[in-house]
Amino acid sequence: MEKKLTLAHGGGGEETQKLIKELFITHFKNPILERMEDSALLEVKGKIAYTTDSFTVKPYFFKGGDIGKLAVAGTVNDLAVSGARPLYMTASFILEEGFSLEDLERIVKSLSEEAKKAGIQIVAGDTKVLPKGGVDGIIIAASGLGEIIYDGLSSASLEEGDSIIVSGFIGDHGASVTAQRLGFELPIGSDCAPLWDLVKKVLKGGFKVKAMRDPTRGGLSAVLYEWAQSSQVDIQVEEEAIPVREEVWGICEFLGLEPYHLACEGRIVFAVESKDAQKVLEVIRSHPLGREAQIIGRVLRKSDQPKVLIKTPYGVERIMEPPAGELLPRIC
Amino acid sequence: MEKKLTLAHGGGGEETQKLIKELFITHFKNPILERMEDSALLEVKGKIAYTTDSFTVKPYFFKGGDIGKLAVAGTVNDLAVSGARPLYMTASFILEEGFSLEDLERIVKSLSEEAKKAGIQIVAGDTKVLPKGGVDGIIIAASGLGEIIYDGLSSASLEEGDSIIVSGFIGDHGASVTAQRLGFELPIGSDCAPLWDLVKKVLKGGFKVKAMRDPTRGGLSAVLYEWAQSSQVDIQVEEEAIPVREEVWGICEFLGLEPYHLACEGRIVFAVESKDAQKVLEVIRSHPLGREAQIIGRVLRKSDQPKVLIKTPYGVERIMEPPAGELLPRIC
Repeated sequence: MEKKLTLAHGGGGEETQKLIKELFITHFKNPILERMEDSALLEVKGKIAYTTDSFTVKPYFFKGGDIGKLAVAGTVNDLAVSGARPLYMTASFILEEGFSLEDLERIVKSLSEEAKKAGIQIVAGDTKVLPKGGVDGIIIAASGLGEIIYDGLSSASLEEGDSIIVSGFIGDHGASVTAQRLGFELPIGSDCAPLWDLVKKVLKGGFKVKAMRDPTRGGLSAVLYEWAQSSQVDIQVEEEAIPVREEVWGICEFLGLEPYHLACEGRIVFAVESKDAQKVLEVIRSHPLGREAQIIGRVLRKSDQPKVLIKTPYGVERIMEPPAGELLPRIC
Repeated sequence: MEKKLTLAHGGGGEETQKLIKELFITHFKNPILERMEDSALLEVKGKIAYTTDSFTVKPYFFKGGDIGKLAVAGTVNDLAVSGARPLYMTASFILEEGFSLEDLERIVKSLSEEAKKAGIQIVAGDTKVLPKGGVDGIIIAASGLGEIIYDGLSSASLEEGDSIIVSGFIGDHGASVTAQRLGFELPIGSDCAPLWDLVKKVLKGGFKVKAMRDPTRGGLSAVLYEWAQSSQVDIQVEEEAIPVREEVWGICEFLGLEPYHLACEGRIVFAVESKDAQKVLEVIRSHPLGREAQIIGRVLRKSDQPKVLIKTPYGVERIMEPPAGELLPRIC
């Protein structure tokens, strides 16, 4: 019979201790965690970045990843775009009574393996088991700490002429998870991936990077609008330059969505000084996760009504819709 | 009409920005958070403590506190018992579509006020809104960072003769939340409180403190068993010395529970060298949140079958039941 999680696994008694030791400590194996005290003790120095995010994707296992990999990618990428080398993360598991222990182990294993690959250590955790109906399946709440190696990034620093670059196809994560939820088979999977290694290459290249952001909730459009508003500028992108897969266009047309609003979980948007744009593009493309990178647009001008414009191949300019509402909950 | 949370509040678009600015930034007001980038940038030095916990209590508003205050108390106390001055925390809100915006504001306000009083800054956050049924109401996932000011605490350091002290009545939180959930009126409320100020007084007194722990899930019994196992010792407590209110005994008898298994959210258990026990007790009692502190027992001896013994007033010794199972989910 399949083993299921019980309320006792979250009760703080023997069953909780057993679950923590046999599952979490076994997979997350590191000396900091093995102390099993109330906090992790760490040595850090200088400026650090500190971030938090909760992950609620459904299905938990999707083409190209799972909720465990997503938690690592989300945490690592939030630190990376702050110019910080990811060092430590925490993972708090919020679970529903009756959740499959086998699925939980797959998720924990995946989280652990991705964290190792990305060079981030899981140093503290928590497990809560809620009665049936208290939560639908599993949520992972994570936080991350990193050491700032590149200072001065700010979404308020964009100026006329700066170039906008994306590191790859946009919308794969949102399109692929949505398709799976609706029961179609798409040939593409999620782009979900931790990207510190790629970001590090750019930051160490001596280029003038103004801002970086991972386009998760709200997609590319949310990032560009946030920058436009923080910097009080208009941004113009070229429709033809934005890398969007055929399959993503297909599902977007079918469902009446904009690919620019779909969440990515393994892409970075960069704002860089235009003189460095071509060289930054080459560095990104030289990385296996950045082969499809493109310069997609530029900062047009100062503006007191900041907006994002899309130029079509026919030379027509239209406004990119800012993200609004929530058509696709539990995507990330 | 009462305003309710919609999926759009978590979608990453305009409504999300509005909620973040009008609710979270307004209440949590601090320059680090106002940057509104993907991570908080902080200066730290030396050894730090890093912790995480999720809070799932139901009802969200209980006598003596609410889920917001609980999140601060839980985070601050986890850092305090690690010998760390609480500095920064993150708060990730996981919310159900339809949740009352008025209740959310009360919770955010309470979290913010308690954090200010406790001297911890909320530097990063996240909001997810799940479709109806995705989560029952609200969960707050928090993490915390502190600066270690007292090094060398360890649950594996207890030795024969060490004294065990609790800072006040045990079980008030568990008893009071349970009573409320069952619909009775208890005259007592939760003990929920951040205790750094009390802990700091003890740590700065020059005493030899071996270990500290906040007895949350699994209560006093979970703490004593963890120490017994980590240090490979038997611990003996005096039944008469353990401060338990009449009303807590009453509800425990009624429901067949042990007060030693009930969660506290504003108590600390200390293990100290016996020569310092009386002086530590005086310091704790001199604090408004430690007036009912008691020396409750001592480490008896090395043991390869570690256990916790209770001595009754008649001189009989019995084994304290280790916590097991989960009779009371969503207490903390």
